[in-house]
Amino acid sequence: MSELKGAAIFGQSGGPTAVINASAAGVFLEALKQENITAVYGAAHGIRGILEEKFYDMSKEDPYELELLKTTPSSALGSVRYKLKNAEEDETDYKRLLEVFKKYNIRYFFYNGGNDSMDTCNKVSKYMQKVGYECRVMGVPKTIDNDLWGTDHCPGYGSAARYIATSIMEIYHDARVYDQGQITVLEIMGRNAGWLTAAAALAKHAGYGPDLIYLPELPFDMEKFLDEVNDLYRKQKNVIVAVSEGIKDKDGKYISEYGTELAYKDSFGHVQLGGLASTLVNFLKAKTNAKIRGIEFSLLQRCAAHLGSKTDVNEAVLAGEMAVKYAVEGKTDYMVAFERAAGPEYKCNIKLVNLSEVANKEKKVPLEWIDENGTGLKQEFIDYALPLIQGESSPPMVNSLPRFARLKKVLATEPAMCR
Amino acid sequence: MSELKGAAIFGQSGGPTAVINASAAGVFLEALKQENITAVYGAAHGIRGILEEKFYDMSKEDPYELELLKTTPSSALGSVRYKLKNAEEDETDYKRLLEVFKKYNIRYFFYNGGNDSMDTCNKVSKYMQKVGYECRVMGVPKTIDNDLWGTDHCPGYGSAARYIATSIMEIYHDARVYDQGQITVLEIMGRNAGWLTAAAALAKHAGYGPDLIYLPELPFDMEKFLDEVNDLYRKQKNVIVAVSEGIKDKDGKYISEYGTELAYKDSFGHVQLGGLASTLVNFLKAKTNAKIRGIEFSLLQRCAAHLGSKTDVNEAVLAGEMAVKYAVEGKTDYMVAFERAAGPEYKCNIKLVNLSEVANKEKKVPLEWIDENGTGLKQEFIDYALPLIQGESSPPMVNSLPRFARLKKVLATEPAMCR
Repeated sequence: MSELKGAAIFGQSGGPTAVINASAAGVFLEALKQENITAVYGAAHGIRGILEEKFYDMSKEDPYELELLKTTPSSALGSVRYKLKNAEEDETDYKRLLEVFKKYNIRYFFYNGGNDSMDTCNKVSKYMQKVGYECRVMGVPKTIDNDLWGTDHCPGYGSAARYIATSIMEIYHDARVYDQGQITVLEIMGRNAGWLTAAAALAKHAGYGPDLIYLPELPFDMEKFLDEVNDLYRKQKNVIVAVSEGIKDKDGKYISEYGTELAYKDSFGHVQLGGLASTLVNFLKAKTNAKIRGIEFSLLQRCAAHLGSKTDVNEAVLAGEMAVKYAVEGKTDYMVAFERAAGPEYKCNIKLVNLSEVANKEKKVPLEWIDENGTGLKQEFIDYALPLIQGESSPPMVNSLPRFARLKKVLATEPAMCR
Repeated sequence: MSELKGAAIFGQSGGPTAVINASAAGVFLEALKQENITAVYGAAHGIRGILEEKFYDMSKEDPYELELLKTTPSSALGSVRYKLKNAEEDETDYKRLLEVFKKYNIRYFFYNGGNDSMDTCNKVSKYMQKVGYECRVMGVPKTIDNDLWGTDHCPGYGSAARYIATSIMEIYHDARVYDQGQITVLEIMGRNAGWLTAAAALAKHAGYGPDLIYLPELPFDMEKFLDEVNDLYRKQKNVIVAVSEGIKDKDGKYISEYGTELAYKDSFGHVQLGGLASTLVNFLKAKTNAKIRGIEFSLLQRCAAHLGSKTDVNEAVLAGEMAVKYAVEGKTDYMVAFERAAGPEYKCNIKLVNLSEVANKEKKVPLEWIDENGTGLKQEFIDYALPLIQGESSPPMVNSLPRFARLKKVLATEPAMCR
């Protein structure tokens, strides 16, 4: 275990979740305790904040507000979608990062995000190694999509899954209130992996869920879909369908793009798409006489901190804390990951995975967890997902509305050489 | 005070809310305690259930499940949108109702709903009076739209308002996470009255709300809208707009119908509308270079029992209870209503309003509560609405998912003459 004294910086990247700030709280609160960490910075808009030398001095924040980050959704520091070029092709960004790291004596780099962000993290790590700048680099996983490789699951998923399951259970009650019947199409996020849409099966498990669930792991067939919906509509009048935004046909074309042929083109010739739910609703309206309603969970599913999973929040905090502890102990070039312990009780241990093994890979829902008809999830999925949504987390309330963290965001200034 | 012995029937009508079942619980639990009430029925799908002689014997239900109705959203008995003809024009339905009332010795009729439902309730009341059938008729108010005349507010509104305010506060965090800016358009229910959309101002009051709020109480001008959005977009990059689904232009044309000209027509010539949010998103996309996102709260806003207002739930229960108590005491032909007591502390008393005064009227947001620019609400609205969302109500949880009421729904059989 080698000692390394210097500043730490933390960045948030990719789409927000209900708990990405919980990991931030874990990193900040732990880093502020560490003697070897001489300053704790939060990068504005992830890697871009470092490139632009725009980051905040987290020691200036009220500890109570840092605590509140645990139940404040989205990315409090701002997020970014920025893909670093390969260093072999273009070193510009890397040189700039190195310059900033040296200027502020940054020796700890923590990056919180999904696949793309782990790619960024990996590239930074490898570059710093190559140029011999000693810096401990740790990835902290997050994504509602739950598609990161090398970890049992990702912080952010449990809370989004709890929101989706709860909302569907409520919609289930509303969508069958009249006796003339209704087909309800629910569009859920997840471009390539169906984990979030699969969470609809938790609602079904609890007694009030969709009749049909379509994941992007399997090709989607419009005619089979129509038959399945029609069949149930005839039998039971009320039908609820959950679809992943990312479903594609057997040729790999997104079903949401089917709308293109029908859609209005603006004066620039741009197609104005209504989204997948709207495409399917229009299709069903043309093909059936049923009352049809499409519902998109949209941003709500990734920012609903009021319906957080306590398990998820705690694990997100832990992932941040452990990233700091491991880095201070001398570990680098890893992503913090979860490994489920064997046994009937749910328990996850922290492990470390090489960044290069995680970057740019995707973990999908195992095909053997999908039922024979391709429209539902088996018990294996329930056993996997149900523990992840356990425990109720919500922000403290003021006037019965959430009280979220308010950061001062004091810009960091160049440090004196010693603290 | 005259004694009247007989059965009671309760029906739910119109769009569901998070607390319509709370009023049902109030009616059922109170009616089951009353000695003069010989049987307690719940009508399947409102007035239609009575016409079709399909109603449930509520004494067969587990009391715990009736308690759970207080936190179970939507209409547990099923709802209906059925307009009774005027008795002068067509007596068929009324004769049938009378027949069923006599057969089951129904002497208490409780009807839970909004404007249209109070019209039904009023018509039934007047008919029974006309033919001299003694029956106590009481309306129980409910509507997320909050547009019932004669009452300070309506059960259902407070919970929907709390959901809308909370969700907007969360979306606010998500919708400004990247630094390239975004215009977010939120579509909120309310066809003619803007109460629900106005609830967005509660989010703003709490620090994280829409920049612009457009209610149907004022004519909507597309060019003014574009200017206002563009102006803010230039200044602050992130703009959140809340619009009522019912906004119309100065000629009374729904803005959502503007999409008609752009929309795809199916093979029958039917226009497939994407809704108001989609119309405005397409409009802004064509007119600006901004990233635009439309979000419809859809059914979620009227069934989110997990984010209920305890004040709302308690008042909904109370409205049901008091309807029964007043009816047993001899009152008839009224709707139960709320009257706010003067003073700094929120307190509402129950009062009775003549059904004929309530039927088919609408209460809108007072124009003097809307700010000069027509894009925000004044403090008067906050003072009015904030007390209504106070207190946290959510269903009991099993596996961290809601446990809703499960009714047996035992169909009533013709009663013996005496109990």
